[in-house]
This record gives sequence, structure tokens and C-alpha cells, in this order.
Amino acid sequence: MKNKVVIVGTGMVGMSYAYSMLNQGTCEELVLIDINKERALGEAIDLNHGLSFAPRKMKIYSGEYSDCKDAAIICITAGAIQVEGETRLDLLQKNTKIMKSIITEIKKSGFNGILLIASNPVDIMTYVAWKLSGYDKSKVIGSGTTLDSARLRYTLSERLDVNPKDINAYVMGEHGDSQFVAWSYALSGVQPIYQIASRKDSKISFEDLAQIEDEVKNIAYKIIECKNSTYYGIGMALTKITTAILENENSVLTVSSYLNGEYDNNDVYIAVPSIVNKDGVREVIHLPLEKNEKEKLDKSIAIMKENINTLNL
Amino acid sequence: MKNKVVIVGTGMVGMSYAYSMLNQGTCEELVLIDINKERALGEAIDLNHGLSFAPRKMKIYSGEYSDCKDAAIICITAGAIQVEGETRLDLLQKNTKIMKSIITEIKKSGFNGILLIASNPVDIMTYVAWKLSGYDKSKVIGSGTTLDSARLRYTLSERLDVNPKDINAYVMGEHGDSQFVAWSYALSGVQPIYQIASRKDSKISFEDLAQIEDEVKNIAYKIIECKNSTYYGIGMALTKITTAILENENSVLTVSSYLNGEYDNNDVYIAVPSIVNKDGVREVIHLPLEKNEKEKLDKSIAIMKENINTLNL
Amino acid sequence: MKNKVVIVGTGMVGMSYAYSMLNQGTCEELVLIDINKERALGEAIDLNHGLSFAPRKMKIYSGEYSDCKDAAIICITAGAIQVEGETRLDLLQKNTKIMKSIITEIKKSGFNGILLIASNPVDIMTYVAWKLSGYDKSKVIGSGTTLDSARLRYTLSERLDVNPKDINAYVMGEHGDSQFVAWSYALSGVQPIYQIASRKDSKISFEDLAQIEDEVKNIAYKIIECKNSTYYGIGMALTKITTAILENENSVLTVSSYLNGEYDNNDVYIAVPSIVNKDGVREVIHLPLEKNEKEKLDKSIAIMKENINTLNL
Amino acid sequence: MKNKVVIVGTGMVGMSYAYSMLNQGTCEELVLIDINKERALGEAIDLNHGLSFAPRKMKIYSGEYSDCKDAAIICITAGAIQVEGETRLDLLQKNTKIMKSIITEIKKSGFNGILLIASNPVDIMTYVAWKLSGYDKSKVIGSGTTLDSARLRYTLSERLDVNPKDINAYVMGEHGDSQFVAWSYALSGVQPIYQIASRKDSKISFEDLAQIEDEVKNIAYKIIECKNSTYYGIGMALTKITTAILENENSVLTVSSYLNGEYDNNDVYIAVPSIVNKDGVREVIHLPLEKNEKEKLDKSIAIMKENINTLNL
Repeated sequence: MKNKVVIVGTGMVGMSYAYSMLNQGTCEELVLIDINKERALGEAIDLNHGLSFAPRKMKIYSGEYSDCKDAAIICITAGAIQVEGETRLDLLQKNTKIMKSIITEIKKSGFNGILLIASNPVDIMTYVAWKLSGYDKSKVIGSGTTLDSARLRYTLSERLDVNPKDINAYVMGEHGDSQFVAWSYALSGVQPIYQIASRKDSKISFEDLAQIEDEVKNIAYKIIECKNSTYYGIGMALTKITTAILENENSVLTVSSYLNGEYDNNDVYIAVPSIVNKDGVREVIHLPLEKNEKEKLDKSIAIMKENINTLNL
Repeated sequence: MKNKVVIVGTGMVGMSYAYSMLNQGTCEELVLIDINKERALGEAIDLNHGLSFAPRKMKIYSGEYSDCKDAAIICITAGAIQVEGETRLDLLQKNTKIMKSIITEIKKSGFNGILLIASNPVDIMTYVAWKLSGYDKSKVIGSGTTLDSARLRYTLSERLDVNPKDINAYVMGEHGDSQFVAWSYALSGVQPIYQIASRKDSKISFEDLAQIEDEVKNIAYKIIECKNSTYYGIGMALTKITTAILENENSVLTVSSYLNGEYDNNDVYIAVPSIVNKDGVREVIHLPLEKNEKEKLDKSIAIMKENINTLNL
Repeated sequence: MKNKVVIVGTGMVGMSYAYSMLNQGTCEELVLIDINKERALGEAIDLNHGLSFAPRKMKIYSGEYSDCKDAAIICITAGAIQVEGETRLDLLQKNTKIMKSIITEIKKSGFNGILLIASNPVDIMTYVAWKLSGYDKSKVIGSGTTLDSARLRYTLSERLDVNPKDINAYVMGEHGDSQFVAWSYALSGVQPIYQIASRKDSKISFEDLAQIEDEVKNIAYKIIECKNSTYYGIGMALTKITTAILENENSVLTVSSYLNGEYDNNDVYIAVPSIVNKDGVREVIHLPLEKNEKEKLDKSIAIMKENINTLNL
Repeated sequence: MKNKVVIVGTGMVGMSYAYSMLNQGTCEELVLIDINKERALGEAIDLNHGLSFAPRKMKIYSGEYSDCKDAAIICITAGAIQVEGETRLDLLQKNTKIMKSIITEIKKSGFNGILLIASNPVDIMTYVAWKLSGYDKSKVIGSGTTLDSARLRYTLSERLDVNPKDINAYVMGEHGDSQFVAWSYALSGVQPIYQIASRKDSKISFEDLAQIEDEVKNIAYKIIECKNSTYYGIGMALTKITTAILENENSVLTVSSYLNGEYDNNDVYIAVPSIVNKDGVREVIHLPLEKNEKEKLDKSIAIMKENINTLNL
């Protein structure tokens, strides 16, 4: 398989992802596909003009679905964007139809790599893409709460004054309103966050943690209020997942993975810590959860299933 | 001086520049200023969520002009964007007024670093910023034809199948319709492009060169046709100029520099190869030009002066 | 303070550190000091020839102690190297004398940055450097078990097939025979290693953990058997500590830190997880340890104190 | 072909190359082969301990010639090192014998990638490797004067105070005493060095250029005097060539290439500007040289041929 990434959908999410990869030198070949071919062409030209200033030589062009054949990754970002006042689930019906047409084209190309879904509502759209494609469950991945986990780490890092890369904390469940933080597994450096919060003179209290969890869940609404949509954070989250796949990193990420018995659930895609490498999700990490965390996960999964059932797949 | 960059104007150019710096780890501190404070806030939050995936720790926030005081660089991207059918010079009157208000605020802050102008028409706006600020001419720089030179390198690299970083070719003059390529100084690797073009069996002819020059000049219009505006290429060009300043690189770039006798001209800003380091433009490289190249430069300068004269500075 | 690093001692450890920084673009200015001035000169020239291929412009030269004045970091690697059959503590007497002469010179220069000690036995030499210099305890740091922790992460990453950057595990205590792993705080991704080891079908057993701890402790002897000394791993560990300081990262590293009540001990330098930023060790993380871990730490500290007491400081 | 590099010879040149690649994240898989298997094992372990601090996940191990089968590049650095007082050509007989045994083993493995030779005298050893292997001439490359060109750029950059990456200057001919600078093609940024030197008030005179050429030629002797051998510069030069191949960069480098009519010569390997990509040397750039430059090249080639003729290939 070539070190080649195809992006379907050149809206702000797709393009922020593309631009992030150009600036980081993530892949060797990058293809942009959009229903608006002029747009994809213009974006490819604009990116190419940055090549002289990029860390790595890349081949970038606007293409066709036939270009998917030898790609290592196809990332689907196409879909209507979440707008103010709309929940992520509202987008469901609109985006399922779009997904169907895309998957049909990808199947025709003979593609045999990893399908990375970023269209919202992402957990459901990943299920839709998996179901329609018939690909192996480990090869279809959603961006899940990779971004939410990054938001959590950033927020904790600001509060605790610790490098965000030394914050080990995970948002699980739906990339949406029913998400939750697995606090029992959250660490700042070597220290459990619970241990820090329970110290008398601590910088952070249990109330603070609850407030941070809430803030992380709702920050997307805040950004949308300010600038209509969010795309830079998710762009870099997608670049991270891409690197984990292309470099066979075996990295632990809260992507949206298919449950097949893990967490006593199955036939659903939901964000749980997973080991990601060249084969997609190599392993879903099955963590013993605290009772209240398990209930939140079950509830989140129930919502996903309820939504999936409204679809005619 | 701190390793701190302030961006004034969080439109697509300013934000593509910011996002490029985040992905490349260009600076330690980044401040976003916009007349729309909500917008700047939202952008800062969106960028911060990418920090966990960035190569370097950065402090990013939306700020006030008072934050300019200890910045190493302020990049002004604010201004109306060039739209289809509009020339860069049409923007002149609108943007001069905006520039006045910005410079006034920057002066108040006690800023003592490098002023990097990206607002269009860039050569004139750089002159305006210099005149209004009263700063040393070496400390006020325009992005000039840094991007056009990158476009030229990319196009030649595609035609000659050579790494764009090994193409040494420069667009001089106005960042606009009167720009020209200094072909007598253009190289592919070690070889003069003229030498390549004059070979019988060459991949590239003198007609091709003329066509490439034309294509480079007009490619922005093509991109605008496809996607309304251009921003990714210029974002990375600004990152390159920023690195040259922050790292004291003494890099040769076709920024918009003040002429003070060089090329038999003075009291004008125009893009010519210049050595850029921590002090801004350390030296304007005064190249002996071929007669037809010199005429093009003079013509380009005349246009700049004509425009400047319409302003009441 | 400038982004400037001085290395005292251009043996293989010092030079591997220097070469790592050149390849990673860690600092802007690098000074090499050695008692053998010809050697330092030759090394500086050899490094400079790589600059055309380096990610960042750097100023590299062989210098004098007077060059320490405006440095952000001085790293002392000078000292006799551990040879086969010799323990790290054997080096004590020899290296204390060398340290005295170096510290005297540094003090004269007016240096006011962070002193990073890599000379072995490192925990004791760091104490010596602190005592002789009279600098603030937070500004004198030893490399401690930063390398041992990296060795542990690499070994666990190989066994568990997980990205070493997702292994969160720390070696504490002496950089030497009395070191130990804080297993109760070791994680693979989100999962406690203890939790993994206690699963029936696990890839790794508690016996494996004991064996890995032993292997990590003794691997330096193995390398020395093969190639006389170790230097590449420590070179990159020093680069990591340097980045944490220069970039003000607030990173969690098991550097050798001064205990002042933490872990019920004081007046000793020993490797414990610490938050490292521009001010050196901002905070020693005081972890509640399991009883057997605490005993190991106490024992390791006792050995350090015993050795320190043999010195006439 | 995998993104896999094999290094044959784990002396200081081979290991500096390996360590540079680890710090720059140049390849995915790295194999160390040495006649001293213990040494190669120890080096691999030492490198692996730096992985936690490296920019990219890599698989590093000591191996056998059978590991060459699916490698993209084999770099041969094995051979006696040049010592003080010895010319590069003195090493010829010793190293030809070593090369024979290595090539025999590589051929057996079924290797089908690029053979990169760094053993000295490098131009002759590259010819030897090509002849013995029977591989296509474009797939056997010597490091040539890649390092000498870097030394020249560094020296010019110091004198002219310009970013070494903006110095475009090439050393041609033997990597040894008969090398020369192609001054007629040397540029600082956009400016021909000859043009700079001929200005009245120039920082640099024609006498300076002659002195710089001499200094570049002899600097290796100076380094050897100081530290017995040179390895850091060449390590990074090899990393650059490796990147040009693995990334299919089409970069212009003065590697040692086979002449087949270019420069009116044939059946010899000598350093001339060449375009390097995934297929090795895609094209030897045939530059019209000034008369005195052409004479120097011919003389250098004559020396190579004279030496080759003493060998029984």
C-alpha cells in the first residue's frame, strides 16, 4: 500500500486536516475529492503553493474515486456541518444519504485500506460506513472522541500547569452530548487526577473536575457561537490518527471502534480507548469501569443504537 | 524580545498562518487580535485543542493591542479580501484606513519588533504601515512576492521534475499584475534555467518560460474562481518569513523591502531579494538586472508610486 | 536568557547529546568546552558541517567558561566513563574532583541558568554540583533515571506491542543498582500494567515484570560488554530534558531532584518524577508509594547519603 | 519496497548516520550489520533506548545479510578509517577486499534497492561495488562530495552571513585531494559568488575564494588532527541522501555517479551534481564547465581511473 491519503469532502474540516498534514509532512501523496470539482482543484493548487515551505515533498492533487484504489487511508469528512442550535444527531438523515453515495464509489475503486470517518454524528456515520461497505470492522474507524480527549487534556494542562502531552485522560462514549470522562483512569504525569483532587491543598477539586467535564462537552457549541464551526482541532486530531496508521504506531486513541462483546455490548461503534496501527483498530482496550462510568457508557451506546435503528441500512 | 507573534486580523489568511505555525511549532507564544473579539476568541480555542498533537508547546490566546508590547513580530493580515474581478490595487483605499487605526494602536503599546504586512495591495500597504508607524525601514516588511516565488518554484519543479527546494527562482516587483520573473538568475539545482531552455532536447522552451511566468501571475485569479480566496499558500509563506526572523536565519526572500537607492529607486516598497534576519531586512540584494528585467521593475515601481501618491499619508 | 546550551565535556556522552540537538534543532546556540581544546574544536567543526542538513540554523563553536555567562543551560558530562566491571559508584572520587574544578569556573562566569548534570554517579554528582555551586536547588538537576525510564518504556512497548510514547512508566531511585520501577503507577495507554498482568490471558505476567525490571537495571552492563560504553540513549534523554527547560514545557521526567521533605527525606538528590520547566524542577511530585516501593526508595537514598558522607564537601 | 535501511559497518560513520536518522525520523526500519555482531547488537540496544524521545516510531535491530532482501537502501560504511598522514587513496587495497565480501553476501540476499557507498576512497569503492554487484549504474551511488559541498556552504555562509541553505555551491570531482569548486555555478541566494567577489566593496575577494576552496579540501585533515576521525558531518550527509531516495525527492546532490559520456568521460564514478530519487541517480547533470574547471575534473577522473586500474576487478 502506498503512503497515500484520500480526503473525501473539502469543506473546512477536510481542508484543515489536509493543511495540517502538509505542514507536518504526514504523507507522501494526498488526493482531494469533492462533489464540487472546481473547489477541490482550487484547494489542491492553494496547498501546492506551500510545498516550498513544507518539511517534506508531497504529491497533492484533486482526483476521482478511481484514485482510491491504492490509497492507505480514505478519510470521509463530507456531510452537512453542525450549525448553531442543531445537535450532532440532527445531521443523521442528511449525512447517511451522502455516505451511501460515497461508499458506493469507493467500493468500485477496489480500495483495500483503512476507512476513517469524520462526518457527524461520527459514531453513527462510522457504523453506517461499516455496514454499507462490508469492510472488516477493524478497518473502519471513526474519529470518535479523539478531539474531545485532546480538549480535556488541554483544559487539564492549563489548570494543573503540566505539559498536555503528560496528561493522560480520555473522553469515552458518543462524540456528542452523552460523552463522559473516564476519571478513574485520568493521570497528570504519573499521578491519578483523583489522587490530586483528594489532596487538601490541591489546585483542583472534584467540583472542578465535574465542571471541566461539562466544559469539554460543550466547548464545541461555544466555538460555533464564535466562528460558526470548528475545524482546526479536528484537523490535527485526524492527522494524529493518520500518523498512527501510516507509521504503524500502535498508539492508544479514543477512536470510534466497533464493539463485539467488549464492555458487554456489540454491534455498535462508540469511542473507547483503542490501539491503532496499520491495520486500523488492532485492539479495543476493555477497561474495567467504575459503576457510574459504565452506566454512562451504556447510556451513550443506547442512544447510538436508537439512532441506528431509525436508519434503513 | 520574546519568541512571540501577534496576528492582527483573524480572517482566513491570518488563521491559515496561525494554523501553519501551530503545526510547524514556529513560535512559543501566539496572540490573535481581531476587531471581532468573539471570532478571535473562538479561533484561539479551536487552535488550542490541537496542542496535544502539535510538535511544540505553545501559548495561544486572543488578546488586545497591549499584548503587542513584548512581541518579536506583529503580522497584519487585516483588510478586505480581494474578490473575483477586483484587482489588488482596488483594495487600496479601504485598507489604508484600516491600517491607520491598527498602527495607531500598535504604536501605543510600545512595540519594538518587526512589523510584517500581509494586507493587500501588500507593497503599498507596507509603505503605508512604514510611513504611519515611523519605524525603521528595515523593521517594516511586506510579504511581497514570497508566495509568487513559491508558486514559480512549484510550477518549475513540476515541469522539470526537480525538488522545489532545489529550484532557485525569484518573482520580483509588485505582488500583483506588474510582477516579473528574474529569469537571468533562475536555476534548477545548479543549472541556469536559461541554459536548460537553450538546449535542443530540453524539457522546457523559452515559450514555456513565458507561459509559466504568465501562469504564476494569474494563478491567484484561478484559485479565487474555484474557492473565492487564497490563503493556504500565503499562510505558509508568512510562516517561512517568521522563521527567518525568529531564528535569525539570514534567509534570502523576495519580501517587500524599502528601496533607498538600490535599483536606482527610492522611497518605495517593492519585492526584491532581501536577506531577512532578527532585525528584519538586513540587506536589500542589489542585482544587476538584464535591460528588459530592469524596465519591468521600474514600471512596477512606477505603479506603486502612482498609487501611493493618491493617498494622503 | 538566550536559547543557548553549553556542554562541558566532549566525550561520547556530551557529543551524542550535541549531535542529537543538531539533528533535532533543539537550541539556537551550542558551545562545546573540554579540557582538551583541540578535541572540542574538532568536534565543533565536524558538527558545523552537518548544518546544511539540519532542521534549524544553529551557532556551534568550541568555547571558554566565559561563554557560560548568558547560557540558559550548562550540561556537565565530564568525568571518567564507567568501564566493564566497575560500578557507577566507583567513579565517585575521581569525578568529584573534576566537578570541583568545573563548578569553580562556571561560578566565575556569572552564569545564572540551569545546571544539568550527567556525570556519573549522577545522583551524587548532582548533589556535589549543587553543594559546591550554592545555586538554588531547583536550578541544579541530574539526568537521574530519565534514560532508565526510557529503557523501561521501550522494553514494555516491545512486549505489549504499544507505542513507547503511550507507555507511562517510571524508574525511580538511584541511576544505578538500587533503582526500582514504580509499578503501581505504570500504565500501557490507559491501562494500569498491574491490571494487565493480572488478567488470565495476558501477554505479560508478574514474573515478566520482575524480569523486565531486572533487565532495565542491568542493560547498561550488557551494552558496555558489547561496545565499551553507552551514549546514544543518554544523549537523547539529555535532549528531552533540555527541550523541557528551553520550551518551558512543564514535562514530567524522572530527573534527579533535591528532596526537601518529599518522600520523608531531605538533603539528597535522587530520581523521582518531577515537573521540569524553564526554572528547572518546578515541583517534585510526591507520590504515595506502596510499602515495598517506599522501602526501595529509602534504601536507594540511604546509599546516596552514605556515599555523600564519604566526600569532603 | 519497504521504508527500510540497512547499514553495513557500525563504526563511527555508520553509527553517526544511524543516530542522525533516529533523531530525524528518516526511516521506519533500520538494520545494523557488522562483522562484530556483539558490537552491532550493543549499538542497536543503545539506539532503541532513545526511541521514547524520537520524532517517529522506528524498528531498529542488529541483523544478518538475509535482512537485506526487502530493504530500500543498503549503506556500506565498512572499511578501514582514514588516519592521520594517510591519504584517502591509501585505503584502496584494504577496502576493496572488504567490499568484495560484503557485495557477495548482499547479492545472495536478493536485494533489489539502492546501494549507497560511504567507504573510502569513496569514488573508487563505489566503482568497485558497482562492478562486483552487476547492479544497474543508477542504483549504485557514492556519498561523493555531498559532505564537501556542505562544508563549502557552511564556510561561505559564515563569510557572507547568509543561511547555509541559501548558499548554492558545489564541490565536484574526487572526494579527496583532487576535488574542486565549480565557482562559475556558485550562488549566495540569488547572486553569483563571482558577481559578489568582483564588487569593489565586497566582503569576499577572489583570493578569499581560492583560500576557502583550499580550506574545504583540507578541513578533514584538520578534524582528524583534533579528534582522529570525522563522522558527524558525513552522518548527516548520508541522512540527506537517504531522504532524497526514500522520499523520491529529485534532489540535486553531488553524489558519486557513473559517467557514461557526460563530461566527455565514461566508465568511472565521480562526484558531479546529480538528480537523486527513489531510483537512485535519475540523471547526471551535464554542466558546461569553464576551461580550468573542466581540466580539474578530467584530472580528478584520471586519478580515479589510474587507481581503478591497479585493482583486479
